[in-house]
Amino acid sequence: MASNTRITPRAEDYSQWYLDVISAADMAEHSPVKGCMIIKPHGYAIWEMIQKDLDARFKAIGVENAYFPLFIPQSFLSREAEHVEGFAPEVAVVTHAGGKKLDEPLVVRPTSETIMYEVFSGWIHSYRDLPLLINQWANVVRWEMRTRLFLRTTEFLWQEGHTVHATHDEADAFARKMLDIYVDFAENVMAVPVIPGQKSDSERFAGALRTYCVEAMMQDGKALQFGTSHNLGQNFAKAFNVKFSDENNVEQLAWQTSWGVSTRMIGGLIMTHSDDQGLVLPPKVASVQAIIIPLWFKDEERAPVMEKANALLAELQAAGVRGKIDTRDGRPGEKIFHWEKKGIPVRVEIGPKDIAAGEVVIARRDTSEKSRVAIGDAAAIVSDLMVTIQKNLFDRALAHRESNSVGVSTWDEFVTAIEVGKFVTAHWSGDADDEKKIKEATNATIRCIPFSEASSSGTCVFSGKPSNQRVVFARSY
Amino acid sequence: MASNTRITPRAEDYSQWYLDVISAADMAEHSPVKGCMIIKPHGYAIWEMIQKDLDARFKAIGVENAYFPLFIPQSFLSREAEHVEGFAPEVAVVTHAGGKKLDEPLVVRPTSETIMYEVFSGWIHSYRDLPLLINQWANVVRWEMRTRLFLRTTEFLWQEGHTVHATHDEADAFARKMLDIYVDFAENVMAVPVIPGQKSDSERFAGALRTYCVEAMMQDGKALQFGTSHNLGQNFAKAFNVKFSDENNVEQLAWQTSWGVSTRMIGGLIMTHSDDQGLVLPPKVASVQAIIIPLWFKDEERAPVMEKANALLAELQAAGVRGKIDTRDGRPGEKIFHWEKKGIPVRVEIGPKDIAAGEVVIARRDTSEKSRVAIGDAAAIVSDLMVTIQKNLFDRALAHRESNSVGVSTWDEFVTAIEVGKFVTAHWSGDADDEKKIKEATNATIRCIPFSEASSSGTCVFSGKPSNQRVVFARSY
Repeated sequence: MASNTRITPRAEDYSQWYLDVISAADMAEHSPVKGCMIIKPHGYAIWEMIQKDLDARFKAIGVENAYFPLFIPQSFLSREAEHVEGFAPEVAVVTHAGGKKLDEPLVVRPTSETIMYEVFSGWIHSYRDLPLLINQWANVVRWEMRTRLFLRTTEFLWQEGHTVHATHDEADAFARKMLDIYVDFAENVMAVPVIPGQKSDSERFAGALRTYCVEAMMQDGKALQFGTSHNLGQNFAKAFNVKFSDENNVEQLAWQTSWGVSTRMIGGLIMTHSDDQGLVLPPKVASVQAIIIPLWFKDEERAPVMEKANALLAELQAAGVRGKIDTRDGRPGEKIFHWEKKGIPVRVEIGPKDIAAGEVVIARRDTSEKSRVAIGDAAAIVSDLMVTIQKNLFDRALAHRESNSVGVSTWDEFVTAIEVGKFVTAHWSGDADDEKKIKEATNATIRCIPFSEASSSGTCVFSGKPSNQRVVFARSY
Repeated sequence: MASNTRITPRAEDYSQWYLDVISAADMAEHSPVKGCMIIKPHGYAIWEMIQKDLDARFKAIGVENAYFPLFIPQSFLSREAEHVEGFAPEVAVVTHAGGKKLDEPLVVRPTSETIMYEVFSGWIHSYRDLPLLINQWANVVRWEMRTRLFLRTTEFLWQEGHTVHATHDEADAFARKMLDIYVDFAENVMAVPVIPGQKSDSERFAGALRTYCVEAMMQDGKALQFGTSHNLGQNFAKAFNVKFSDENNVEQLAWQTSWGVSTRMIGGLIMTHSDDQGLVLPPKVASVQAIIIPLWFKDEERAPVMEKANALLAELQAAGVRGKIDTRDGRPGEKIFHWEKKGIPVRVEIGPKDIAAGEVVIARRDTSEKSRVAIGDAAAIVSDLMVTIQKNLFDRALAHRESNSVGVSTWDEFVTAIEVGKFVTAHWSGDADDEKKIKEATNATIRCIPFSEASSSGTCVFSGKPSNQRVVFARSY
């Protein structure tokens, strides 16, 4: 299963580099079914780390997991006008099953608002049933024309949270609270700095009142949406009759939110941290944080080296580090190369000479630095490195974003900055037509209206119209 | 969301009792899509406990998780002759996607042998790539005519393991090892006694050489298949070209296994332990093991009661018990009833009088026994009860199975025993035609050829033909 792909340098071909990193790290591959991907063990392990961390965060604020059907009657999708317009063109449709033509075609879920809210309307009777806080880990399908491993695939894995509240403000606060969770997760677990904000109307989720989002910058300067949280208002509640009796026994329409992150984040993780040698994983999402490579040249050296390797593994585990010993046959250079491509944060080499000197070699994946340390200190040093590397990756990504972000006030500056791949903060009046023209002219879209920029007055960088907000423009994935 | 369904007693209508237990415990419900179910939080939490436990067992023997596409090209399914015959009648087919008719219809996976093995053939080159040990947690779809919550639904959740080996014996040993894991899991986690054995050819998995299984007895005496592990031989390897170069560089066909358990197990769990008061959960799969119910009658009693409740919760957690306090408003009787229906293993009641006496009331869900204990001893007693209840549920289920199992040697005895709902062990020659006639006459099928009965000589209970095996017959789910 090992891959020996040469990794194209970023400077030579960024797109090919991305695919090469995935292939060299053995994370995923295209499947025989067009647009679908196979997530291989090393890629899936990252998804498991993501699931475990986020799931605990959701549960800590009272969200419960449930599971709803894969199939949605086609008629459900049509009930919310914007929603069907947004999703109808990209659904996969089951027309036959059990050897017969179905009376009503079934859509393979592109997202589950419609099926869930139809059911929620039966669950909710009074204000005592609120808030209802549900999450689902599932696969969804959106028929994409141009696919790209992790970033855009026909089928992908995600979590979709769906909540119901008694008031607009409570729903909005919950949608914002979830965005805060996504920010903290992105920055402190994935080591990916993100800009939280709100989407413009044209980038809003189909059927939502407001879409909040977190946007990250990739190494090529393009933006990647890391997660979204929608204040759905009462749009779906109206369409699916989600009502409750309030304290005065008066029937009220409910207020809803939905929010999600997907396997797309793994694409963002790769493009934030990896280098020309391959994948670089932040320690918090690495299922193996430290790989021990025992080295020997003569058969009789094997036993003492393995003994030290096993002892060190035990010490690492006791220090809370997820360690592993590479016990495979093979040449040392190949082994080192193998784990480097897989992005393991720290490599520890132990050979006969090291043992004689009472030392081991520790190599950091993020900086390629190597150092010799006393074997008795190794576990503590590796444990500390987990914190150091996690922080370094975040700081490096943040510095990259900051040096590639610019605020502009003229159209010339705008065009130039977009052309060289920057995040551009500029005034925009809120006019959707101007937004469209800017996209046509530069291929840049509004990534978000950062919360920090939501009230500042000036004039639109494109049209000169009065503006009370600065927004972030960029080209995006 | 709370349900107040009356639970039909088992003696009155066993089938209705099963559905009432699910409804009263708020575990699942039928969905607007025919045959699909909605797994509600209290049902899904059990699935999460199952996943967590099994996943750790798989990883401990080197199995890695991965994810393969939901869709399978229709032509893949046809490549293994028995397999397509077994599954083609029950698949759901996507014919349209992205607004267009597809060139080749896509089947929604009923199981993933075909898509996985097509891909495995590209992963495996030499004996060094073996064994390949992959597992997937996923949803699958089989278009069932008559569905029943958890037991038989159009879409269900499961894990499917797929392994590739260099030799027949290694594959067979792995399939048996996985069966051992399923036995241990069923008995020691789910508290469900099972009979491990082999399926007759007519009950074999479509495409397998041999199917191993674990069978459990429900309270009505019917059998439920808890899990299966298949030795696939080289049938799929031939169809999908799964080959490897051996140590002598000679190309060989690989040997494979597949194995799985599904949300169906939750149906078996319900029907093994529950009673006329509702669900009964073994402590090891209960996400809440002990529910603390604070009781007060005057407002000023609330604070001291809650203080004791919180202190006890902390003690329970320190003792490794998953505890929870019912902080909802509501009458005590309703609260007690609520958690009883949900099957929580232990209930702890704390009221002002209890506090004055320095005591709490502890109630066991399995036996309905109540006792007063010193508040300082409560956490240790509840912790011990987790072990006691887990064991009691297993012992009770085993005693039930033993008293409803019988060995017979005549056809009259056979018919009578099946009629009263027993597991019947009897000789059978291996003749598939006799097996079919027995089913037609009694509605009983061969549940398994227990490993313990696989060599014993006699004559077939039905035909009188010479037999060298005793098998278990029963009516089944």
